[in-house]
Amino acid sequence: MTRTIAIETLTPGGFAAYGDVIEAVGDPDMIINQAMCERYHDRALIDLDNDGGRAGISVFKATVRAVPHLLDMMERHPLGSQTFVPMAADPFLVIVASDLNGRPHEPKAFLTKPGQGVNYHRGIWHGVLTPLHEPGLFTVIDRIGPGNNLEEHWFDEIYEVR
Amino acid sequence: MTRTIAIETLTPGGFAAYGDVIEAVGDPDMIINQAMCERYHDRALIDLDNDGGRAGISVFKATVRAVPHLLDMMERHPLGSQTFVPMAADPFLVIVASDLNGRPHEPKAFLTKPGQGVNYHRGIWHGVLTPLHEPGLFTVIDRIGPGNNLEEHWFDEIYEVR
Repeated sequence: MTRTIAIETLTPGGFAAYGDVIEAVGDPDMIINQAMCERYHDRALIDLDNDGGRAGISVFKATVRAVPHLLDMMERHPLGSQTFVPMAADPFLVIVASDLNGRPHEPKAFLTKPGQGVNYHRGIWHGVLTPLHEPGLFTVIDRIGPGNNLEEHWFDEIYEVR
Repeated sequence: MTRTIAIETLTPGGFAAYGDVIEAVGDPDMIINQAMCERYHDRALIDLDNDGGRAGISVFKATVRAVPHLLDMMERHPLGSQTFVPMAADPFLVIVASDLNGRPHEPKAFLTKPGQGVNYHRGIWHGVLTPLHEPGLFTVIDRIGPGNNLEEHWFDEIYEVR
């Protein structure tokens, strides 16, 4: 049996239970560089464990997917938050879920707008990176360090995200 | 008198004295997500002082500039590195300089390619954010915390960057 997830528009309110939307919306917090630049300050929480991990900057290049998208697996990172900044002005799919008894529960799917990145809070279930446009390029800020920071859950019944 | 700076192509080698180029080039360091994603791992150095600062994620929206660009000021951040990730696939100008007696010396200018971000190493003189295309949107990873982390130098003679 296939279950369906309806794609929603990504908004900070709708996403708050899962993480941060990184975007320049509302009034800037500071005006800098002789009034030539708006700073939207401190918009995502870098949250790492303290046992030898540090924040690192990497680049992910992911295979482009299509909608409808079949969701068969979600993952989470118990030791740290994970930020995805798209390096092109293309929407991408963001899939998250709450946790129930150690498993992803009631997944939700969001479509970003150009100029939006996301930060998954530590331990939040999420789908793998699913760009919809080439070249599928993202800068990622996540924990680098020792320990097992990846947990996967494979669904018995897949979801169709559309 | 106006001095001229010739814009160069941004490459990791040419930029190494000033910081890191953030891009997906060469062989990926890891293949993840059931072979659907390449990870170019740990490509920029987050380097912060230890007196109460932390890495934060902000968004900058900067006024678009044109070439030739007049450079009258450079700045540096003594307490931490600063990373700029473009949120669109447009080139932007990157201006850096070495230091001589506490002042920027022999500025250089680089034009990025789509899919390139930059990380200025701690204390490196650089120009303010100079996008060449709307909306001039960047995610920035830099130090958030107490202390004076901004030093500016205004040139007696401006430079024309072209």
